[in-house]
Amino acid sequence: MKRCEIASLFAAPPAQGEVVTVAGWAKTVRDSKNIGFIELSDGSSFKNLQVVFEAARLDNFKEIAKCGVGTALLVTGRIVLTPGAKQPLELNGDSIAVEGVCPPEYPLQKKRHSVEFLRTLPHLRARTNTFNAAFRVRSEAAFALHDFFHKNGFVYVHTPLITGSDCEGAGEMFRVTTIDPEDPPRGADGKVDYSEDFFGRQTNLTVSGQLEAEGMALAFGKVYTFGPTFRAENSNTPRHAAEFWMIEPEMAFADLTDYMDNAEDMIKSVVRHLLASCPDEMAFFNQFYDKGLLERLTALADSEFARVSYTDAVKILQENNDKFEYKVEWGTDLQTEHERFLTEQVYRRPVFVTDYPKEIKSFYMRQNDDGKTVAAADMLVPGVGELCGGSQREERLDRLEARMDELGMNKDDYQWYLDLRRFGSAKHAGYGLGFERLIMYVTGIPNIRDVLPFPRTAGGF
Amino acid sequence: MKRCEIASLFAAPPAQGEVVTVAGWAKTVRDSKNIGFIELSDGSSFKNLQVVFEAARLDNFKEIAKCGVGTALLVTGRIVLTPGAKQPLELNGDSIAVEGVCPPEYPLQKKRHSVEFLRTLPHLRARTNTFNAAFRVRSEAAFALHDFFHKNGFVYVHTPLITGSDCEGAGEMFRVTTIDPEDPPRGADGKVDYSEDFFGRQTNLTVSGQLEAEGMALAFGKVYTFGPTFRAENSNTPRHAAEFWMIEPEMAFADLTDYMDNAEDMIKSVVRHLLASCPDEMAFFNQFYDKGLLERLTALADSEFARVSYTDAVKILQENNDKFEYKVEWGTDLQTEHERFLTEQVYRRPVFVTDYPKEIKSFYMRQNDDGKTVAAADMLVPGVGELCGGSQREERLDRLEARMDELGMNKDDYQWYLDLRRFGSAKHAGYGLGFERLIMYVTGIPNIRDVLPFPRTAGGF
Repeated sequence: MKRCEIASLFAAPPAQGEVVTVAGWAKTVRDSKNIGFIELSDGSSFKNLQVVFEAARLDNFKEIAKCGVGTALLVTGRIVLTPGAKQPLELNGDSIAVEGVCPPEYPLQKKRHSVEFLRTLPHLRARTNTFNAAFRVRSEAAFALHDFFHKNGFVYVHTPLITGSDCEGAGEMFRVTTIDPEDPPRGADGKVDYSEDFFGRQTNLTVSGQLEAEGMALAFGKVYTFGPTFRAENSNTPRHAAEFWMIEPEMAFADLTDYMDNAEDMIKSVVRHLLASCPDEMAFFNQFYDKGLLERLTALADSEFARVSYTDAVKILQENNDKFEYKVEWGTDLQTEHERFLTEQVYRRPVFVTDYPKEIKSFYMRQNDDGKTVAAADMLVPGVGELCGGSQREERLDRLEARMDELGMNKDDYQWYLDLRRFGSAKHAGYGLGFERLIMYVTGIPNIRDVLPFPRTAGGF
Repeated sequence: MKRCEIASLFAAPPAQGEVVTVAGWAKTVRDSKNIGFIELSDGSSFKNLQVVFEAARLDNFKEIAKCGVGTALLVTGRIVLTPGAKQPLELNGDSIAVEGVCPPEYPLQKKRHSVEFLRTLPHLRARTNTFNAAFRVRSEAAFALHDFFHKNGFVYVHTPLITGSDCEGAGEMFRVTTIDPEDPPRGADGKVDYSEDFFGRQTNLTVSGQLEAEGMALAFGKVYTFGPTFRAENSNTPRHAAEFWMIEPEMAFADLTDYMDNAEDMIKSVVRHLLASCPDEMAFFNQFYDKGLLERLTALADSEFARVSYTDAVKILQENNDKFEYKVEWGTDLQTEHERFLTEQVYRRPVFVTDYPKEIKSFYMRQNDDGKTVAAADMLVPGVGELCGGSQREERLDRLEARMDELGMNKDDYQWYLDLRRFGSAKHAGYGLGFERLIMYVTGIPNIRDVLPFPRTAGGF
């Protein structure tokens, strides 16, 4: 008999008495003499299916009653509709077979486990409620992002992971090599000879696909990346990972406002998708991780994001400097405490802060006419602070080269990037969204190690 | 005036005389005295928009007439419907502004460029027909895959790129390190001390996410990966890249037939999506890369894939050994010539070859009762040969350990993987699809360097 998934039983309950087969893992097994109850999960649904089993019907009643948590079972039985109960139906087992045993050494016995303990079991922890919910939300958020950009005519581009240069000085990089570390080839000067390395040069893992995405946007009009990104920074914090996923949209013939409009639509679209497609998971996070989560996300989906210039934001913050550990003055970067104050206390909704001082932003951001600021904007959201950042890109060759000279950058490394300004240059804008930061935001999970299936962070794995 | 995208003009033509603004790049500019024609591309559509411009209407007629190929332009004009013409409409310009000039040094002048030459310009080549079509098809294929798995209840999982071990001996790996290569820390034995490396151990770039995906499938039931994968193999061929993207679905409570059914549905679903969503691009490939492409893909979408055991396939091939460079006998791996013979000559449609000798397949594949073969299957398609490969996984702890011992593998490195067989083990199956191989197949492009936006191959980049 063809197996039914539990999610489909809940979505479209069969008729009373219909015979179905399900397969899954026992989350709990209880029994009293002649009747027993199994909470069965097959991973298709956050909710478990209750299986009732009776000594009168099963030859192997005792074997089943003794099953350990985690046992894989095949159950054929009759649907019993249970209107008014927590679940719309249960299954009365006519035959239950053990597919795979689960001995008492199984580390996920029925009790509360700390996330720290579960991090030591990355291959098993997705079987627990928190991680099952987190990774399903992660999957649905990824789909919502692809769907949003696809619907809006963006081309999905894969930018390279292995790169030849540190594109924007964005951070420490991992080296990628096949050179024998014990005895590397060396040149006449005694230094390691990278012409002998796999690609005939020194190579690293990318810190951003933005520059390549700009090139693709100037061909396709609108593109986005969604791929892994790396930082070899020794930041052992709840918010930093060495390997994480980024979304980097880039739009030609677009300015700062176009970026903000798109990013606002994008976040709302993802949040609406999650509220609609993962109600059980989101309710779980609201109950156990952040009591204000659903209210905050619902508000975000319905709000119009505020927009304020950095200069005006600094004025507002300076009036409240007594509340901050780090005092604000024009020219300093905003700290999370300032960002949260703006979005939570001042605007009480998401807010874009625009036109930051050029000294605290990247070389590729478009220089404003005031000579002091660039057309950059960060999106700040309640509960978190910065969720994504972007800018209009400097499309004027002379301005871009002048800024690179000011910063002492080696223009030879960027000739291809400058070509984009030489040949049919166009106004364009884009942004970057850290995917894990988004998942932390929409789940309330406070540690990046718990939204990545197999986290790679400073401190090892 | 808000900019219209060319794709939307073609999809839903405005009324005759309606005034619209478009922005894009000139692919050609022609003029004769008082009238000129621009083929304008904004990247939203494979088809260009014809812009007509007249000296009588434009003060800057001469400037526009002199525009180089690649110039970025902003055009406001009136829609002229052209029923019966190649395109449904053109635009009569009332005002044309140069957004970004494009000097004669622009390397993509109007002429035929070789793909070899264009590979030297990865930042620009997406502006040409071949690469514009290839990367749009790549994007649409990626979306079709996400959509297929999402609709079928698969959870998208991100398996790690940086790994601690060579999971299946699948190939040479890149090392990932932050150790100073000039003067690495060394232990008392004089060897490089990897406890000083970023993760406190030796780390590599992954060759496959399958083993981790198995763990996730035993929690979620059905999962798939879609991410980058690496091989540090010095294979300078048209089919090998050092960095490429893989799709690795994995299904619990599933056997070899379930994998084949899913993979067949998946390929058909992607092909149907491409035929429907990229008609212009597919027609281009059919015309310039492979005259039989559309016919072959249409046939694939409508066919029922054949299935034959390796043992039976070998019998068929042996009867034709005079046709092959490599003669076939039971126990040898099939070469592309054999695979193509089976799918093109014998079955004339896609075919799964099943149950290969265990010696030529991986340790994790489920051992058949004959003691000689494993429950593996490769999907062979006309024109290419193997498109994807998969197997039922060995879910029996004792069998898996015995096979690992036979192969001299270090079981200590795989304790987490063996845990999946200790704790609620279940029948499961999965497969791997090389994304670039799929794109080569659906476009007819013969070199993997031309379906990857920024290829990383042996020989450098």
